[in-house]
This record gives sequence, structure tokens and C-alpha cells, in this order.
Amino acid sequence: MTLSVTFLGTSGAVPTTERNPSSVFVRRNGDAFLFDAGEATQRQMMRFNTGFDVSDVFVTHGHGDHVFGLPGLVHTWDFNDRTDPLTIHVPRGLGAGVEDLVFSVGGDVGYPVRVSEVSAGETVLDFPEFEVRAFTTDHRTASVGYALVEDDRKGRFDRDRAEELGVPVGPKFSKLHDGQPVELDDGTVVRPEQVVGDPRPGRKLVYTGDTRPHDAVVSAAEDADLLIHDATFANDASERAAETGHSTAGEAADVASRAGARALALTHVSSRYAGDAREISEGASGFGGDAFVAHDGLEYEVPFPDDE
Amino acid sequence: MTLSVTFLGTSGAVPTTERNPSSVFVRRNGDAFLFDAGEATQRQMMRFNTGFDVSDVFVTHGHGDHVFGLPGLVHTWDFNDRTDPLTIHVPRGLGAGVEDLVFSVGGDVGYPVRVSEVSAGETVLDFPEFEVRAFTTDHRTASVGYALVEDDRKGRFDRDRAEELGVPVGPKFSKLHDGQPVELDDGTVVRPEQVVGDPRPGRKLVYTGDTRPHDAVVSAAEDADLLIHDATFANDASERAAETGHSTAGEAADVASRAGARALALTHVSSRYAGDAREISEGASGFGGDAFVAHDGLEYEVPFPDDE
Repeated sequence: MTLSVTFLGTSGAVPTTERNPSSVFVRRNGDAFLFDAGEATQRQMMRFNTGFDVSDVFVTHGHGDHVFGLPGLVHTWDFNDRTDPLTIHVPRGLGAGVEDLVFSVGGDVGYPVRVSEVSAGETVLDFPEFEVRAFTTDHRTASVGYALVEDDRKGRFDRDRAEELGVPVGPKFSKLHDGQPVELDDGTVVRPEQVVGDPRPGRKLVYTGDTRPHDAVVSAAEDADLLIHDATFANDASERAAETGHSTAGEAADVASRAGARALALTHVSSRYAGDAREISEGASGFGGDAFVAHDGLEYEVPFPDDE
Repeated sequence: MTLSVTFLGTSGAVPTTERNPSSVFVRRNGDAFLFDAGEATQRQMMRFNTGFDVSDVFVTHGHGDHVFGLPGLVHTWDFNDRTDPLTIHVPRGLGAGVEDLVFSVGGDVGYPVRVSEVSAGETVLDFPEFEVRAFTTDHRTASVGYALVEDDRKGRFDRDRAEELGVPVGPKFSKLHDGQPVELDDGTVVRPEQVVGDPRPGRKLVYTGDTRPHDAVVSAAEDADLLIHDATFANDASERAAETGHSTAGEAADVASRAGARALALTHVSSRYAGDAREISEGASGFGGDAFVAHDGLEYEVPFPDDE
């Protein structure tokens, strides 16, 4: 069961020749999503072969470097005869602006596009095996972050124990694993708790968009398997980070540490580090887990919490 | 006196990994212009080091692949503290749509941006040494093409003849070259027509945007030193070209031939030729001048008509 992240754009507000504006592509088996869609996101999807089967775009806030890729994407899908509906989730208050952006030039498209306003605290998407929740961020404009949270998986099935108990290999195994008791030929009843371990947690992927460090982010990112956090600046530019509603790498590392996140991706890197992002990387050295500076085209497979 | 063209985007409606959507950067000495601005034009300007000192953007029509780069450009200029005014010229009827596109998300900017509607036949820009004129194209939506036409240059100054006539080397040479008679010490009057040749034509650069072949384009492109013409399709797709309001390479070549253009750049290449544009190139073989398929990053210095 794949849960993979492809970083499509990792620049700050202004792109550079190396970094496109913000966008993160997420694939979970047959489902594909975008988190933010800066200018030229469609072309990054082509470059990095993500596929175009996106059902939902989750927009963190209405700054251009997070949304100016929407009109191109929406109209390219139309050129390619898309029929599946598309939902663009945006923070409350931004719906009309995004509709204007997408449809003011180039006109209507031949498939349903819904722009849906969300608030922090809402479950934005509820799929059978996972959900996407919006949470509070602090960027001095209407903004939210998003957490993709998988449901618990079934506990491990103890095959040896089942055989010891006389359960014949076959459909009764599945029945037990699915939580139902089975009756053996001799009338004995085997209950699922005898052969199935505790439910195991699913994965948690958290994307902040642009934000100051914030308790709500710590809370949303609790035990995240991957936290993708604003790290626009190195640690010596903390005043600038505060002024502009962003975070330093050190502040991102602190949030990740407090949340007990397992891995931390630093992104939204200011163009002042265009040639060399080592200062960003070094700024997050206080984080005990795996921290890395994202770059365009980087793929990351989010591990299960119980994977070694 | 440079008049150089940098092709920033040469794809059809849908970009490919090799070709960005339409945009042509033109520099004439200290002046810089964009003709169309498809998505990610700003990043192409960075890649190809064009400079960002653009005063005017000339939009041929309101399809997304020609305008979706505008919001990113306008807001990046603002991030970079631009103060110079910007004028975006658009076909009549498209002004409100382009303003919505640029300003619906991300808000106002700190320098003047004017969206100005133009009609075919108008002189859109009148600078001391050249002008930009809009002309009729046929793309089944409000559309125009643009011709950048330099004024005539002064005739050649015949220095030997001036010396023969007894004109002393110095300011009298300039006066004559500027068209004024001079009086020599012995009272003789030398008239400019004695030492200055006929005015020599300036250069002419013509950009069609998306269009069917059209007599108005032939007329606008008369004696053009470079004609940049829609060549979305190879010659075997002429029906498709007609249906979609585009031209084949052969049709572009025919327009260039009828206009007596000196060079022909084929652009807006459909993604169906993503791997190999030879069919486009071969389709224009009927043109007697220099024909070439444009590609992203290609620079072309437009020669004077009397250059060999």
C-alpha cells in the first residue's frame, strides 16, 4: 500500500531556475492528490511522471505561489477530455477568488469542477481507509494545513497460533482476521482476539503550507510519519521569518520535535538560498528524526509507524 | 542596434516536458517586451537570462496557454519591488477577464499595471524609433497579431563625396546626415541629398499568435524580416488545423512566401510532435527563405533588410 510524496515545487514566493513554486503530489494506491498548485505544477507533473489522475487539490492559502498553477491544470485536463469531477479545497473566504482565477479567462470546461471552502478542524475528505483533515496555521491570511491520516489497520494475524488451535488454512483465516469468530468441525469456537493482534496505526502525512511555528501545527503533526513544514529561512533570519509569516528551519525542527514526528521535510526555500540550501539543512539539526531539505522531483515513500 | 527574439514557449495548447506554452521575448536595445505569456513564462525568463525589464506584454488572444503566466509575472515583479508601470495589451473584450485573472487572488501590487484593449489596425505602441501595430488574425475568438516595425533609418552618409565637396570633417557631417544643408567657408552650400543616400528601411518583426492562414496576415507580414507564425500541425493534419483555428507548417510557409518574408519561425507546435518536430520542419519546405521550427530557449537576432 503505497503512500508516496513527490515534491513538485519547493521554492519560496519567487521561483528560481532550480525550484518551482509550491506543490506536493501525493499518491495513495489508486488515489492522487495535490497539496497546493503553484505556477507550472502541470509541467512538473509531466517532468516527474506523477500521473494526472488527481481527484482533489488542497490549497493552504491564497498567495499566488500556491495557486497560480490551477488555471493551467484545469484547462489542460479539459483539453485531455477529463470527465471525472475535480474538487479544489480552499480556506474559507477564498472560493470566489479561486473561481475567478480559474475561469475568468479560457471559459468553462467539460467536467465538473467544484471549489469547496474548508475551515480548520474539518474533515475535508473521508475515504474508506483514510481521511484528510484541515488544521490551523498562522500565515497572516486565511490559511489551513492538511493532514492525511490513515485508519488503523487490522492487527497482525498469528498464523501459527491459528493452526495450533486447529483452524484449517482457508477462508476461516480471513474471517478471523476480519474480526469474526469461527466454529471448527469439532464445535470449538475460535475468537478473533485469540489469533489477531491489536489494531496497528496507519500512516500520517502532514503538510503545513506557509506558517509560523504554532501549537495547532504541533497538535496536528503528533506522531506524524512525515511532516512537511515551511522552512523558508535559515536560523539567522528569524526576524525576517516572523515578519513574513514564515518559519526558520530551526523553528520547523522544533515543531517536529514537539510533535514527535518521525521525519521532517523542509520546504518553501527562499530564493536567497538558491545556490546552496545547506544553511536550511543545518538549521534543522536539532531534530532527532530524519530531516531533509526537499527539492523538486524528490520522491519520498512514507513508512508505516511500525516499519523499522 | 539589437533586435533579438528569445522563444520562451513553443508548445501548442498543452505543454510538454520540452516545450512551455506560448511566449516570445523581444529585446530592442533598452526596451523589452513579451508577446503572449503562457504559464511559467517567468521561469523561462530566468532560465534563458532574458532580463525582467519588460514594459509591455502584447497578448494575442484569451486562451489559457497564452495568458496563464501573467499572474505569476505580475506578482513576482511586485515581490521584487518593481516601480515601473506595466501595460498589458489585449484584444478588445478581454480586458476584464485578464484583470480578474491577474488580481483575483494575491491582491494588488505596488506598481501601476494597466490592461489596455486594442483592435486590429491600431498602432498600439509608438516609440521614437519603432512602433507596434495590431493586425487581424483568424482564431475564432477575439484575436490580433502584432507587428513591430522600425522607422526608416537615415540614408548612408557618403563621407568621400563630402570631403570631395570640401566639407570639413566634424559637426557639419552630422548636420548633413541629419538632413540639414551646411554652408562652407567659401560660401558654397552643400545640400544633404548630395552626400546622403535614400532612407533605408528598418526591421519588421511579425508575431501572429494562433491563426488560420489569412490575407490580413500576409499584408501585415509584407517584407517582414522575421515572421513568427502558428504552425501547430504538419501538413497531413490540415483538416484538424482548420477545425481548431490553427495552421499547418505548409500554410505558414505559404503565408510567408506570399508576404515576401525573409525568415519564418514555426511555433505553437502540437504535443503530438513532442518527440520529433521534423514533420513541421519538412512541411514548410516550400518557403524559399530561412524557415525553422522554434524551440524553447532559441535566440534569433533579426537582421536589417539590407544586411547580407
